[in-house]
Amino acid sequence: MTIRRATPADAAAIARLLHDFNSEYSELTPGVPALTEHSRQLLATGEMTGLLAGAGPDGIALLRFRNSVWSGGPEAHLQELYVVPPLRGRGIGRALLEATIALAREAGAAGVDLNTGATDTAARALYESAGFSNREGGPDGPSMLFYELEL
Amino acid sequence: MTIRRATPADAAAIARLLHDFNSEYSELTPGVPALTEHSRQLLATGEMTGLLAGAGPDGIALLRFRNSVWSGGPEAHLQELYVVPPLRGRGIGRALLEATIALAREAGAAGVDLNTGATDTAARALYESAGFSNREGGPDGPSMLFYELEL
Repeated sequence: MTIRRATPADAAAIARLLHDFNSEYSELTPGVPALTEHSRQLLATGEMTGLLAGAGPDGIALLRFRNSVWSGGPEAHLQELYVVPPLRGRGIGRALLEATIALAREAGAAGVDLNTGATDTAARALYESAGFSNREGGPDGPSMLFYELEL
Repeated sequence: MTIRRATPADAAAIARLLHDFNSEYSELTPGVPALTEHSRQLLATGEMTGLLAGAGPDGIALLRFRNSVWSGGPEAHLQELYVVPPLRGRGIGRALLEATIALAREAGAAGVDLNTGATDTAARALYESAGFSNREGGPDGPSMLFYELEL
């Protein structure tokens, strides 16, 4: 499984994966042309970092870095992790997650965070097996929740 | 209750509030001098936006904006919301949250998100009363969870 860093030239392939991702989960998507333009711009400015798996590409991880007020250094947010449906169950998601962690470590990040749904048990098992925790202050602490408000 | 935008000159006051915040919850803090330097830098570059309540200042909201690959425009993350203990229960937190939402709307953000603990019922009630949702895909959807990995 080859994993490589995305460049702005990968924007159209990334857009297609993102579009398929949201379509699969019946969520809104602005469509491939708009996603291509957004991806190209965010990759070109370095605001977003992408990892692509396989030749399709068959899977994608999108990361965002920002500097923490606590540590003064970077922290990473894994915004999207997606593998095309026919190739699931072959470890592509795990390989992308491991590459994400390695990349964050290389960038000197103090940590990686992400959001997922409580009923998405496959994703949660993957994240937990890689060491991610949803518990505050230790393994027996309360769950940490993600909230959003649309404007 | 006066709420104003923080400038880099407020870095020391912000640092003191952040230090007190983490100390209250027995979480690690790098100390006031380091937090002052981090805050000054992030406010100066525009990577972080701060709102200060009252003359103390008595409360603080820290926001981070980033451009979304989905919308192409900004989205806001409310990273910290804190009110000094003796002044709680007077609506300062709510005023800061409302100012946060107004600021995000003014910046053209598609949404505001945040993380909080499942047992932090006062914070959850405040966020929910302002329209934030922890549910995926609608009011009866599964909870959205926040995960982190320390590196």
